[in-house]
Formats: sequence, C-alpha cells, structure tokens
Amino acid sequence: MSAPLPSERAFIPFVSVENMMRLVHHVGIETVLIELTDAIEADFRRWDLFDKTPRVASHSHDGVIELMPTSDGAVYSFKYVNGHPKNMAQGLQTVTAFGLLAEVSTGYPVLLTEMTLLTALRTAATSAMAAKHLAPANSLCLTLIGNGAQAEFQALAMKAVLGIEEVRLYDIDPRATEKTVRNLAKTGLKLVPCTSAQAAIEGADIITTCTADKQYATILTDNMVGAGVHINAIGGDCPGKTELHRDILLRSDTFVEYPPQTRIEGEIQQMDPDYPVTELWQVVSGRAKGRSSDRQITLFDSVGFAIEDFSALRYVREKLAGTDYFQKLDIIADPDDPRDLFGMLLRAA
Amino acid sequence: MSAPLPSERAFIPFVSVENMMRLVHHVGIETVLIELTDAIEADFRRWDLFDKTPRVASHSHDGVIELMPTSDGAVYSFKYVNGHPKNMAQGLQTVTAFGLLAEVSTGYPVLLTEMTLLTALRTAATSAMAAKHLAPANSLCLTLIGNGAQAEFQALAMKAVLGIEEVRLYDIDPRATEKTVRNLAKTGLKLVPCTSAQAAIEGADIITTCTADKQYATILTDNMVGAGVHINAIGGDCPGKTELHRDILLRSDTFVEYPPQTRIEGEIQQMDPDYPVTELWQVVSGRAKGRSSDRQITLFDSVGFAIEDFSALRYVREKLAGTDYFQKLDIIADPDDPRDLFGMLLRAA
Repeated sequence: MSAPLPSERAFIPFVSVENMMRLVHHVGIETVLIELTDAIEADFRRWDLFDKTPRVASHSHDGVIELMPTSDGAVYSFKYVNGHPKNMAQGLQTVTAFGLLAEVSTGYPVLLTEMTLLTALRTAATSAMAAKHLAPANSLCLTLIGNGAQAEFQALAMKAVLGIEEVRLYDIDPRATEKTVRNLAKTGLKLVPCTSAQAAIEGADIITTCTADKQYATILTDNMVGAGVHINAIGGDCPGKTELHRDILLRSDTFVEYPPQTRIEGEIQQMDPDYPVTELWQVVSGRAKGRSSDRQITLFDSVGFAIEDFSALRYVREKLAGTDYFQKLDIIADPDDPRDLFGMLLRAA
Repeated sequence: MSAPLPSERAFIPFVSVENMMRLVHHVGIETVLIELTDAIEADFRRWDLFDKTPRVASHSHDGVIELMPTSDGAVYSFKYVNGHPKNMAQGLQTVTAFGLLAEVSTGYPVLLTEMTLLTALRTAATSAMAAKHLAPANSLCLTLIGNGAQAEFQALAMKAVLGIEEVRLYDIDPRATEKTVRNLAKTGLKLVPCTSAQAAIEGADIITTCTADKQYATILTDNMVGAGVHINAIGGDCPGKTELHRDILLRSDTFVEYPPQTRIEGEIQQMDPDYPVTELWQVVSGRAKGRSSDRQITLFDSVGFAIEDFSALRYVREKLAGTDYFQKLDIIADPDDPRDLFGMLLRAA
C-alpha cells in the first residue's frame, strides 16, 4: 500500500552540549562567529520571506519561558529558552535553551540541538553584524559592561568581525571581570579591567551592556555617553528589564530587530509606542541608512529574535554534514504503514 | 562563589518511541488509558489554574506545525506537533509530536519525550473522559468512522473507561478497517466491519469520527443521526477541516475544550462566532450540566488542547520514576560557575 518508511526518517540528529563544543572547536571559535555573522546577515537580507511573530512568553514570579518559532517557507525552526536571573545564586544558568529545525513540507523534525552555547554565539554574532553597519569606521575599542556568561563571546565576535583590539571591562562583581580576563588571556586582545562603568567607557568606540539581573537598572546615564559611539544594549530584553537611562535613547538613533517584540521587551519599552526606530534588516539590505555621521550615537536595542536562531540552527545543520558530532534520537514513531500506529505498539509487546 | 551544579541538572530524561512502547506495555495499554483519563480529568477540574492560549500555528500549503504551551504555575509544558494529511502517501505519519516538561521556578527542562504515541493515547483518553459525562448511560456500542492511526486507541479507551462491548467500523478504504479489526482481535470487543457510514451508525450509542484527509468533508449528514447519541468529532481540527454537516450541530448541544481555539479549528468554525457552546471543564467540575435527557444529541467538538498534553506529560513523568524507560540527554550547558559558559567551552578544547 504505502512505501516502506525510509527508516532514517524516524531518527533525528541531536547535538548535545558536548558535541556542540566539539563542533565549535573543530571549526574554530572565531571562524564560527564570523560564519554565524554571515549566516544571520544573509537571513536578515531576506527578512520579508520569514513568518514573524513575537515570541510566546510564559511569565512567572522568577522568570520567563519562551518559545520562538519562525519559518522561511521551506524550513521551520523554534527555540525553547528560559530567563531566570535568580538561577545563578543556585549555581544554575540564567539562560538555557534548545532548538529544532523541521521540514515545512512534512512537519518532520530534522535537527534537535542544545542552544545554550549556540544562543551565546548567535547573540554575539548578531551584535557584530549590527556593529558592522552602525559602529564608527575602524572601531578599535570595545567596552563590556556586565562580564557574565555572554561577555567573552561578545569580545571575540567584535574582534573577529570588526577587528577590535582593546576591550575595557567592568562588572559590579570584580570576580566576573577576573574570569573574563582569564578566559580571553590568549586571544591577543588588550584587556583593561576597570573599577567603574565611567572608567570603562573612556575611549570606547562601541559600548556593549550585557548585565543580567537588574530590573529597570541604569547601567549607563546620559552624561557618561559621548558623541559618535555605538551602543549595543543586549541585557534589557524582557518587560521590566532595561539598562539605559531614557535620556540616552533620546540622543540616539535606535535600531531594532522586530519592532512589535522590541517595544515590549527592549530599552524602548520606556518610550512611547510610536517612538521612532529603524529595523536593522532594512539597514542590512540597503533600504535604510545605518550610521550617517561621526557624531551620531547609534543604539542597537537588541532583544534576540527567532530569525537569528533560525540562522544559527541552519548553520549548525550545514556544519554537521560529514561529521559525527551528533547522536540519532528515536523521537518519531515509524510504523511501516503510517495508519498502523497501534499495530507498531502491539508488535513491540 | 556559587555551589557546584548538581550535575544531574544538566541531563534531562528522554523517552524515545521505543521506551514509550516499553512503558505502555509495562503498565498495560488499557490501564494507561484509564489512568490518563483520570489525569486529564484531574487537570480539567483545576482548569482555572492554567495559563491558556490558542496554540501557535505555522500554516503552509501542505500542513501545519504547532506549538502548544501551558503551565499550572509550578510546571510548564509544551508540545510540538505537525499535521500533514498528504504525508501518508509518502509512508510518513500525518501527525508526529514530541513534548517537554520544565520547572517554572528555574526554567530547566525535566522531561523530553516522543508524543506521537502519547498524543494518540491522550486523545483517546480525552474522548473517553468526555463520553463519561456526555454519552448515554450504559453505552455499549461505539461506531468508529475513520479507521486510521487513532481508531484502535479510541476503541480501547471507550472499552476500558466506559465498558463499550461492540465497535462498528467504517472507512472509505476497507484496508484501514481490516487493519483495525486485526489489531483489536484479541481485545474481547465485538467488531463489526461495515460497508457504509450509514450502516456503521446503526444502533450506536457513541459515534466517533476520526478521519484525516478531507477538507470540509461531510462524514455525517443530519438524517443519519438519531436522537440520544453522543458524537465525538475529533477529525475536524484545523481551519478548513470539518467532518459534520452544520445541520447536525444545530440539533446538538456542543461541548468544547477551549472556545477561542475551537472556534478557529473545530466543527463550530462553520457556525457564527457566538454559537453557544459549553466548556467541558465546567461539566467535569460540576459547574455545568452534561447530558440532560435521553433524546439529547451531545457533540464533543474535540480539537486537542495543551492541558491534555500537560496531563499526559506529567503522567509519563510519574510513571518513569523507578524505571529505566528513558535515556539521559546532555542538553543543558553545565559550567561549574554559571557565568563561566565560555570557560567551559575553552576547557573542552
């Protein structure tokens, strides 16, 4: 009646945390960051093709669990990701994630992977892509305020993609800065630990804020920010969580991923619902201007969008080909006759 | 600084298709169906506690991919499920699914499992729960129109939960009916294959329609349905896909899971937006009447709701305790210091 199922359809490749680390080292961390930046940029150029929806968030007292689906019509992706600032005190990750790719034509999954590491990589690559279009020409100095789990990825992406040479570091916890300096010691970057945010931003071309556990914090105030810099604000990413004083926003030109999501989750949640923003994909595809003068302050109000995860997932899928950096998971029921699901169960007795 | 991570937090139990079949046989298929019915009923009684949202659907030419999240405040669940009627012609399942449970307090996943089989089981259990409250007292005869992947599960759930003794079967493809008869041969049910839908519904107390691949089909017309029966319509479950003539709905009292979803996806998509329905959870919890007379036609316009998957997932989690019907998946990154994700990656080199 029906053709026998190709049995490999029943198994989907799964990339564990260990295999993701093997894959990243196999390719090289900086190469991964460069290639991910290119993959995300390629998908931003075809932004119109994608199904876009604000992520589906389940908020609770301690955090949020989100599902982030998208599709380009041929491939579907989603990511499961949580955000629980208090987790760190229990020795747990603030953010953990995993994701999936599926064929739109059949609905069959084709890849399941850890995305805690992959999200850190794609977030840094997205920052680098934005900075390519928005930061001052020949930017050499990056300031990182917040030296948590995302910090090293940000520093390396800015080095690999933009040629950043110096990284100035500040965190309210000096041990976080020490950890970051230790981890970046062999990268060739000049590392400058600082004792205040004010000191850290001296001479910066790019200022990245990536703090995790403050509600309506003011990591930067208006008087700290000089003309001409690019601000990459990635820590303000859910309702009630921001990092910048609104006066900085008023002096900046603000670029965002997907406005309906950013107006809920980003720095611009502090502003009116019609506060003017430019969509980053329009800059990337040449339809809108990025940086237009040396004195302009550009702000990438980054919250993370599903298309970036799509890009990261399809990149991993491409890189897996010909490697053994995955296991096969028996997650799809595979009866010989698709109508005979019960018979398959019976015969397993 | 932070306590070392209990390393088992990094691993989440995964139930493959093979392990799900082992678990079901370990417990017993009919016992699973009875216990699942009880689990779903218990959660319908506390319906108010749950986060409820229509599922997030990504429609394409050939089918749909859906994410179905919910939470009771302590535990979060979601299911990934596709529906691709044309898959069968390629030897693939029309519906495949997997699902996840996570702790709301940390966002950490605690269970990942296949749900193709589990969805078939929970759909049958939900039908049985509805029939307990809506079908005629002492129902003995079930008609199954549509003898595909769901048929045997429906028959066994109605037997185990309601005491159904006779099952009358019809499908436009006689081989589907033969398959169902073969699979149910040793269950003690009296099986009556029929050559028309009209013949199949003779003497039925409960009529279940579970056809898969028709758009706006009319499996039942008004003149076929006599007074007093309970109709369990489970095949009409997405926009443009229905099974019943609207005149049947006009003669029936209609019961649904979650009205905002059913009005889009169920049989009542044929009716006005304010067409009167009763929420099944209100019947289960004693706040609304189920069957009120012998002559009444009751209709459960079932489309499948996230809370039923939640119930099924928590049931599987409970049943797994003390067994080895799972593998441990390394899907959560687990650095000793949660801020040192990059250090974990470095040390893996």
